[in-house]
Amino acid sequence: MRPVSIVGIGQLPVEAASARSLRDLGATAVRLAMTDAGVERVDALFCGNMLSDELQGQKHLAALIADEAGLRGIEALDVGAVTASGAGAVRMAFLSVASGQADLAVALGVEKMSDGVAMPAISKALDADREVAHGATMISRNAELLALYFERTRAPAHAMVWFAVNAHKNARNNPYALFHKMRVSPRKAATSRIVHAPLRLYDCAPICDGAAAVVLAPAEQARAFSDHPVRILASAVATDRFRVDDRADPLLLEGSQLSAHKAFRQANVHRGDVSFFEAHDAFSIMACLQLEAVGFAAPGQGWRMAAERRIGIRGTLPICTMGGLKARGHPIGASAVYQVVESVLQLTGRAGKNQVRAAKVALIQSIGGAASTVITHILGV
Amino acid sequence: MRPVSIVGIGQLPVEAASARSLRDLGATAVRLAMTDAGVERVDALFCGNMLSDELQGQKHLAALIADEAGLRGIEALDVGAVTASGAGAVRMAFLSVASGQADLAVALGVEKMSDGVAMPAISKALDADREVAHGATMISRNAELLALYFERTRAPAHAMVWFAVNAHKNARNNPYALFHKMRVSPRKAATSRIVHAPLRLYDCAPICDGAAAVVLAPAEQARAFSDHPVRILASAVATDRFRVDDRADPLLLEGSQLSAHKAFRQANVHRGDVSFFEAHDAFSIMACLQLEAVGFAAPGQGWRMAAERRIGIRGTLPICTMGGLKARGHPIGASAVYQVVESVLQLTGRAGKNQVRAAKVALIQSIGGAASTVITHILGV
Repeated sequence: MRPVSIVGIGQLPVEAASARSLRDLGATAVRLAMTDAGVERVDALFCGNMLSDELQGQKHLAALIADEAGLRGIEALDVGAVTASGAGAVRMAFLSVASGQADLAVALGVEKMSDGVAMPAISKALDADREVAHGATMISRNAELLALYFERTRAPAHAMVWFAVNAHKNARNNPYALFHKMRVSPRKAATSRIVHAPLRLYDCAPICDGAAAVVLAPAEQARAFSDHPVRILASAVATDRFRVDDRADPLLLEGSQLSAHKAFRQANVHRGDVSFFEAHDAFSIMACLQLEAVGFAAPGQGWRMAAERRIGIRGTLPICTMGGLKARGHPIGASAVYQVVESVLQLTGRAGKNQVRAAKVALIQSIGGAASTVITHILGV
Repeated sequence: MRPVSIVGIGQLPVEAASARSLRDLGATAVRLAMTDAGVERVDALFCGNMLSDELQGQKHLAALIADEAGLRGIEALDVGAVTASGAGAVRMAFLSVASGQADLAVALGVEKMSDGVAMPAISKALDADREVAHGATMISRNAELLALYFERTRAPAHAMVWFAVNAHKNARNNPYALFHKMRVSPRKAATSRIVHAPLRLYDCAPICDGAAAVVLAPAEQARAFSDHPVRILASAVATDRFRVDDRADPLLLEGSQLSAHKAFRQANVHRGDVSFFEAHDAFSIMACLQLEAVGFAAPGQGWRMAAERRIGIRGTLPICTMGGLKARGHPIGASAVYQVVESVLQLTGRAGKNQVRAAKVALIQSIGGAASTVITHILGV
């Protein structure tokens, strides 16, 4: 397997409702990443998206966007793992370059959620027959996990607030973040309206539009394309029992644990080597459970890392350093590629006021559905 | 890149309406292929499906089926290229083994079209804004191509009949084929009802349910799993201008041409080495245009290969040897994996009455949408 590097990045500002069409969002992100790498042509495009089927009546997005970006003839495939689809696209681009089948591959994540009502479509990430048919939604599943967490850990009522506060604080220095002008106090988050008890509004990432892309190349050629390439040290996917109800312990995200362990082994790095962690904070409880599953916190103690501000930019483990899904925004299929773009900025000293000191190793996780799939990438310089 | 072989195959009979659920179809095909390879565990599952979103209200199929098949923890990702999705899954499984990231990977194709009305969802393979919004469907697009073909070539009115006759003849010896008990005379096909002028019923593959899977392993370990492994000599994807209307010549399938050329180069074989061709005869015009695009026939002459029976099992280039999409059936996301399974049977001398003599090299093409994406695989022994 040949080592792979990221040699170009592109992102568009996350917006509540972009004036661009879905295809334009996607093609623009692709061209931005290619311009950053200084290339006019790539061999392959892998596209991560979750909702175009319902919201734009469009399947076959990779081929559509390849054409829109002027890349007729190249390989183009759609890759999915619902809410982790962007990470699936990164993984496929990684495999195509690592295998030697492509010399330059683009991973794109794109979502335009403002074109319709996204919620019913999002629930298709769950088991249609055994969850959705009984009234479950992605929000209700996360509310149940949060309730169980409170019940088991006896964490204080506002234990989760600090995840949102951290994310919003970081987003203020990210011009691409949806909420980059908003101030969120602990009080504001703690008293935000109940969406689905005990989940509050500030426990949930917002619906929005966005697109991000990265160009991958063989590591040994990376310097030909970029002055600041970043290595993909590991790429790993793991599943769990599909339904939360079938898991021995619903509060242990085995997909997160397993894919992280696979990735650490692959990268030959240790948990303690991680400079910062881009968690999948679509719901604050998910970020909390990830901290525990990966082993940064003991079971039931993840919330303390947030409450004690250890997750801040100057903390022991900065997380969601450019705003996370909560405050940069969560254009679903695009989010994981934003995570990768942001990690590249951190690792190359271009994260501005949010720069993590001596950032060498980035851990990135993206969660599909109720953590039925978890995709982990480790980047390094 | 390490060479990759197919070491296990599994298929379910194609049916108009299977008694099995979508997940059961998928999990059963996976287990059949794993049993054939003699393995209890694989590293990764790649799932090709086009319509579960609309017909079963289900996304996240790869993870769902991994769990259903008892494979908790493994990597699982959905791969799509609409009507070529199964071939996308084969390609991803190939990349994962070729790269060294997986030692055993399953490619699954599964579709259950009997759960609802498939046609509107199928048209999402086209451009929603610039084709579907103006009334185009997959059927109308193929009807237009057929009309243009007749106009340009002056081929006789029944020129396409022989594709259906060949497919149905071959299906009679394939117990997994939807139409394995049906006799179709040239007259029956030629006088079948007009679906969308000039397309007749026998120019179109049927709507149905099915699932097929293959297990991939490194070629050097293939004999540990199978007494008759088959090498994947090439895997290639190419796109064309997305809309037929944007192509310089709508009758030249550039995606077919380009992906075939890439594959021939990769496999280091010549067109003349091909023992048989599993074409994507979702519409007879597509099979005809593929013969021309790959170079087996001159432009405008593809129909003659069929009319002169050169595509039969004893012909110069047998095509659709186990019934093709037309008569084995076209459970959309599954079809390309059926093609691969059937090619393995041919290459290992297990194709029964339809055995192609001295079969050494199989060419397989799967078409996404109106040939916006074409995926080519070459298998060999």
